[in-house]
Amino acid sequence: MASDSAKQPLLLALLDPTPQTNKRDTPKRRRFRRCKSAPLAEYNPGQVNANVASLPHSQSILDRLHPSFKRVAVFLTIYLGVGTLCFYLVSPQINGNKTNGVLDAVYFCIVTMTTVGYGDLVPNSVPAKLLACAFVFTGMALIGLILSEAADYLVERQEILLVKALHISEKVGQMEIMDEIETNKARYKCFLVFVSLLVLVAVGTIFLMAVEKLDLVDAFYCVCSTVTTLGYGDKSFSTKAGRVFAIIWILMSTTCLAQFFLYIAELYTETRQRKLVDWVLSRKMTKEDLEAADLDNDRVVGAVEFVIYKLKEMGKINHEDISLVMEEFENLDVDQSGTLSASDIMLAQSSETVK
Amino acid sequence: MASDSAKQPLLLALLDPTPQTNKRDTPKRRRFRRCKSAPLAEYNPGQVNANVASLPHSQSILDRLHPSFKRVAVFLTIYLGVGTLCFYLVSPQINGNKTNGVLDAVYFCIVTMTTVGYGDLVPNSVPAKLLACAFVFTGMALIGLILSEAADYLVERQEILLVKALHISEKVGQMEIMDEIETNKARYKCFLVFVSLLVLVAVGTIFLMAVEKLDLVDAFYCVCSTVTTLGYGDKSFSTKAGRVFAIIWILMSTTCLAQFFLYIAELYTETRQRKLVDWVLSRKMTKEDLEAADLDNDRVVGAVEFVIYKLKEMGKINHEDISLVMEEFENLDVDQSGTLSASDIMLAQSSETVK
Repeated sequence: MASDSAKQPLLLALLDPTPQTNKRDTPKRRRFRRCKSAPLAEYNPGQVNANVASLPHSQSILDRLHPSFKRVAVFLTIYLGVGTLCFYLVSPQINGNKTNGVLDAVYFCIVTMTTVGYGDLVPNSVPAKLLACAFVFTGMALIGLILSEAADYLVERQEILLVKALHISEKVGQMEIMDEIETNKARYKCFLVFVSLLVLVAVGTIFLMAVEKLDLVDAFYCVCSTVTTLGYGDKSFSTKAGRVFAIIWILMSTTCLAQFFLYIAELYTETRQRKLVDWVLSRKMTKEDLEAADLDNDRVVGAVEFVIYKLKEMGKINHEDISLVMEEFENLDVDQSGTLSASDIMLAQSSETVK
Repeated sequence: MASDSAKQPLLLALLDPTPQTNKRDTPKRRRFRRCKSAPLAEYNPGQVNANVASLPHSQSILDRLHPSFKRVAVFLTIYLGVGTLCFYLVSPQINGNKTNGVLDAVYFCIVTMTTVGYGDLVPNSVPAKLLACAFVFTGMALIGLILSEAADYLVERQEILLVKALHISEKVGQMEIMDEIETNKARYKCFLVFVSLLVLVAVGTIFLMAVEKLDLVDAFYCVCSTVTTLGYGDKSFSTKAGRVFAIIWILMSTTCLAQFFLYIAELYTETRQRKLVDWVLSRKMTKEDLEAADLDNDRVVGAVEFVIYKLKEMGKINHEDISLVMEEFENLDVDQSGTLSASDIMLAQSSETVK
């Protein structure tokens, strides 16, 4: 019992120095900060962009881009380059509504990789058909990579600008903006992507009406058919100008809709997780819980026991996490004192040198 | 220091009773078991299927299905029912290669919701076009729901059968199979879905050759064009028998490929997470780490401090998790003793009754 109460300051030391009262009514979700020496490449891209907005402006645009974003850009360039070359070489074996050799090859490549597949250009020989099969599978994988790495990075950058803009009238610091973003992350991202999608739909519809001379319903129908990658193909981009626009617009709008669905799913998961946390915290402790949480059987539950019981109930930690770390602790605790001190570390290092 | 060593048995009590030696070489990943009273609906479907195989066989098939799976089946039935009715009613306004009224309506509905969109049937009036727009968006959302809830459930059930079959010669218990599945979850799922995909591709190709009289390359090209939802539409299902087959096969094969990509992503994330855990555990403790982990500034790091430091470094827990739980602990600790006992709980309940 004494040891449990002695433990409490340790846990309190983990917490913010601010008073704990009413913390749950005004939750300030602080971003977990990575240990400085942790390997960057191993990390979730969502967790390393915290300081993106504070990068010095003197860096070049390329330097300021996130490594995973740069990698995706390189892959996309290679893919489109090779795809265009291949389809340009087999262009005599592609039937349909043609405009300009290279332009049609890029357009066909984009229509294939995004799985829109209008069918306004169709491969008409064995090699051309097999090429299309190869490019649609690799294209899907590439779109998946764009969605998982680059898109999220772009949205997070915009998110910071959005929240800054929303609070432009108030004097708020970088820290408050970060907290605000952290609390409503999934919601802001959904909102941003939804607005981008509306803009892309509007731009596409207007363009199809102006350049491809479609009426409003047909233009909207073609836009819907494209962003969803449905691509019936009865309406598509048939002019040179239309195809130049399509190359950029199709890639942006299809990934935007897919990202929107991903963020909806994220928002749903987050809400569900928060509900579980609220339920775990607000649930009344019963005598059975008390017994289950009382790991050392001293008939009282200390702060540490309580934290571990609740975190396990929330699904944040499990037996294995703790057992792996404890094993490491025992290995490090060379003098078996039950604590790690500077001498343990020196002993461990010297014993390794001996080996 | 004394309090830290006193704490160690508490943490050890969390762990398996088996000896801890060489645990990392033969990791037995035990599934985190949910507290019995936790709300089922709030839970990740992946976490509640542990006992699916041990359900009594006397239950009807419908009763044995997971609630989220049943929900998806109901949604899909309603969607296809309403879709078929709508497209049947506007069938005079749909142009193209027609076979049978109702069959074409179901087929058009499936081709639209999966975003295959061959274009062998196209809406040719304002209401029909707007209907198609509405059905493609809702269809995408439904496919997303199938992927997130039902597909994973089906794969997990098959996974249990697969692992049982692989170990049929050895005498292994339910627990060992569960451990085996838990350890290589993502890998088995990828493998299962990949094999299913190969079977679906083969079945589709043979069917197209036999019934739609396509040659091998055209049949394979049409299959690839379909499973990826590309759907150029130069080759599609044009006979009655073909469309009956297509209704089931398109839905299965497109979700199967999408699920395969999802599992690849899951496997990648899991590998990355495991690498991070390994890195955190194998990293040499430096004096700086020792200082950072020493939360109560007693110049030594106890087991609890070490576990918390390492779990934070792994990104499993953060300040907020602990602060929320600690706040709850303080609320419950009515007598401010630093521990929870039966009397605290009784006091809390009686004070609530007074309010």
